[in-house]
Amino acid sequence: MKKGKLIVIGGDAAGMSAASKVRRTDADREIVVFERGHHTSYSACGMPYYIAGQIESSDNLITRKPEEFRKKQNIDVRIRHEVLKIDRENKRVQVHHLENGEKFWESYDTLLIATGASPIRPDIEGIHSKGIFGLSTLQTGIEVFDFIEPNKPEHAVIVGGGYIGIEMAEALLERKMNVTLIDMAPQVMTTLDRDMAGLISEYMKEQGVDVLPEESLVSFEESEGSVTSVVTDKRKLNADLVILGMGVKPNSELAKEAGLELGVRNAIRVDKKLQSSDPAIYAAGDCAESFHIVRQDPTWIALGTVANKHGVAAGINLSGGEIEFPGVCGTAITKFKDLEIARTGLSEKECLEEGLEYESATIESRTRSGYYPGSSKITVKLIVEMKKRAIIGGQIVGFEGSGKRIDTIATAITAGMTAQNVVDLDLSYAPPFSPVWDPVQICARRLV
Amino acid sequence: MKKGKLIVIGGDAAGMSAASKVRRTDADREIVVFERGHHTSYSACGMPYYIAGQIESSDNLITRKPEEFRKKQNIDVRIRHEVLKIDRENKRVQVHHLENGEKFWESYDTLLIATGASPIRPDIEGIHSKGIFGLSTLQTGIEVFDFIEPNKPEHAVIVGGGYIGIEMAEALLERKMNVTLIDMAPQVMTTLDRDMAGLISEYMKEQGVDVLPEESLVSFEESEGSVTSVVTDKRKLNADLVILGMGVKPNSELAKEAGLELGVRNAIRVDKKLQSSDPAIYAAGDCAESFHIVRQDPTWIALGTVANKHGVAAGINLSGGEIEFPGVCGTAITKFKDLEIARTGLSEKECLEEGLEYESATIESRTRSGYYPGSSKITVKLIVEMKKRAIIGGQIVGFEGSGKRIDTIATAITAGMTAQNVVDLDLSYAPPFSPVWDPVQICARRLV
Repeated sequence: MKKGKLIVIGGDAAGMSAASKVRRTDADREIVVFERGHHTSYSACGMPYYIAGQIESSDNLITRKPEEFRKKQNIDVRIRHEVLKIDRENKRVQVHHLENGEKFWESYDTLLIATGASPIRPDIEGIHSKGIFGLSTLQTGIEVFDFIEPNKPEHAVIVGGGYIGIEMAEALLERKMNVTLIDMAPQVMTTLDRDMAGLISEYMKEQGVDVLPEESLVSFEESEGSVTSVVTDKRKLNADLVILGMGVKPNSELAKEAGLELGVRNAIRVDKKLQSSDPAIYAAGDCAESFHIVRQDPTWIALGTVANKHGVAAGINLSGGEIEFPGVCGTAITKFKDLEIARTGLSEKECLEEGLEYESATIESRTRSGYYPGSSKITVKLIVEMKKRAIIGGQIVGFEGSGKRIDTIATAITAGMTAQNVVDLDLSYAPPFSPVWDPVQICARRLV
Repeated sequence: MKKGKLIVIGGDAAGMSAASKVRRTDADREIVVFERGHHTSYSACGMPYYIAGQIESSDNLITRKPEEFRKKQNIDVRIRHEVLKIDRENKRVQVHHLENGEKFWESYDTLLIATGASPIRPDIEGIHSKGIFGLSTLQTGIEVFDFIEPNKPEHAVIVGGGYIGIEMAEALLERKMNVTLIDMAPQVMTTLDRDMAGLISEYMKEQGVDVLPEESLVSFEESEGSVTSVVTDKRKLNADLVILGMGVKPNSELAKEAGLELGVRNAIRVDKKLQSSDPAIYAAGDCAESFHIVRQDPTWIALGTVANKHGVAAGINLSGGEIEFPGVCGTAITKFKDLEIARTGLSEKECLEEGLEYESATIESRTRSGYYPGSSKITVKLIVEMKKRAIIGGQIVGFEGSGKRIDTIATAITAGMTAQNVVDLDLSYAPPFSPVWDPVQICARRLV
């Protein structure tokens, strides 16, 4: 059993899951969590819906507050404390108390780095103008909300058509703004293939978003410190609110400076136990690598589900247990208004990058029996490895009831099922829920 | 390649799927289908919703009409033709043309029996009164609908709390009747365990259905040929409409008289190729056995999904191909109003019957993130085999978005996954779709 003092850097999903797991195993272990922000354990994924005005209070997004961790679990959580340095030789971290300016050293026996990821902010002209936001911590979500109330922006420009981009497009439409979305890629949602992404941008346009693909951000113009327009390589767009959805990067600087090995896209290299290149240091969540169960190599995926699983596994190993987190297959889901979007495994694009021989099929079906009220369109794409016909990827775009069907595909991929295996699955059917052959199976039949 | 003339007895899901599959493989093969009813390829599962008035026309429930099969696929479908006898020695069937009374013999090279199942109608006093209906063929559904319009029944009694029973309870509430449901069992939905079924009956009562468990049907009273009350072992219930949902039995009399082997609950015994004890005769759909992939023995499950899969597999084998249908795990889904109900694998009750050592866990969670609008209650129950911790059963009761989660469990069961494997699954999460740990995983965590 590993003992001694545990320090956790970062008090969100991965860090607090790990700390809680350690506490459940050992009631007396000293656990200190340093969080540079204002909040612990919140749902960053809920921010677009808060900004849209669909959630009453930002407090609702907080799963557990620092004082609850302190009182209920005896975990010494200190918010507004930024770790500046990891001194591996002396097993201690240097901490900056952001409220009173104090700096001090705190020693550890084991350390967990759970510093998360940050939105990419390009260093271009006007980037520091008021009205330009990236979304990362809960605090940034609150700032966007608090900006909208008094300033009543009318022209929003979203840079980047990924998850944040399309969720914020929905949110800002909801707030009655004119919304323009630019992306340097020829499609939105680059984690899906272009054919499937086309269904999404088509629907976004129908619903009033001005979607501009293959258009790059050049700079911002401002007046009296506030953004007034977005300059692209093609035109100038009026803007009094800008959301940067240009992707995120792992917060791995601390680890790098401490000499820890970095991996894919500079995420902290960890093994399946979440242990870094220093045996006394673990890393978990958005700052750390994962293992991709289809590609069978390290990958980096910054998602809440992964962070939570990392946290639990790291917590078990930090408590002297021994567990391996087998990895991820890149499952993700989102929606734009009532259009549900989901993906798992490898896309065609990724197969090509890997040099993998594959075959794909795409079908259009219905979410319910065709005659049942509310039956809507669903498009399913599946990808099999060419020879063994194992399912290696899936993408779904469709209306109510479509998205969560990705879980069946993710489970089938994890189990190594072939297209025929999926056709044979005993999936549920009743008219309010599905056609008699589930759309996933209709698609799999094309690949047998 | 098997050649020669194919006769199919029964023109619904299994029969027509098989006939279509054979036609796609062989454009010239002679295929004759005898169907004693009025319709082919219809959705029997849609009848409660038609009766509820939610579907415009009964025609919408028909996937394909006899004339379409004749014209588009050159399949000689003859409705209102009842097969009276199978003469295996001379490879011929005796057919009764129900419209003109003619009887004739028709020879076959291969025969497919797809005669379906019929609702159980106990032979008790008053059973033949007007206003008492079982639901089997589309025609019976139309008869119920056509009875309601002119007679405007006010007091409906449903006998049996299975799928038909609870779907009809919803339908008749929708038609503004007072609805009483009696069941001789101590619970509704006996394919689920009593704890989960309790959630269903509780909700049914809340919504105005008078649910009376442990109450047996004794007889019916009538006036001028029409039912007036249902007599139970406990009381007399006013009734001007009665729905019998007392289960179904396989239509295997023809097969039995022809000396074919019968199996579980008198369903026609077939192997995984759907071949009966006579190599020239196949059986598929509700009249035939299936293989249970958890229990690893023959079972009988009368459901549309199974019938369709049987039909395709039988069709392949009847075309000279060779395919085995691996079997079912007993997945089923339904709803009562907005309460979704699903099950797969073995229930606790079935585990006890099998003498299987098991452990179960039941959790209550939310369909979406707790703070997201529309987040509702979901209850998930999982059952693992005691030693290897493999998932062998699952049950779900909850509101919108609950039911289809059963597919993840069915897929996990089929793949032989353990509770830990399910916890590790990369399932999809975003606030509008799920808590960060899917409820299925929250439940699996209890069984690791």
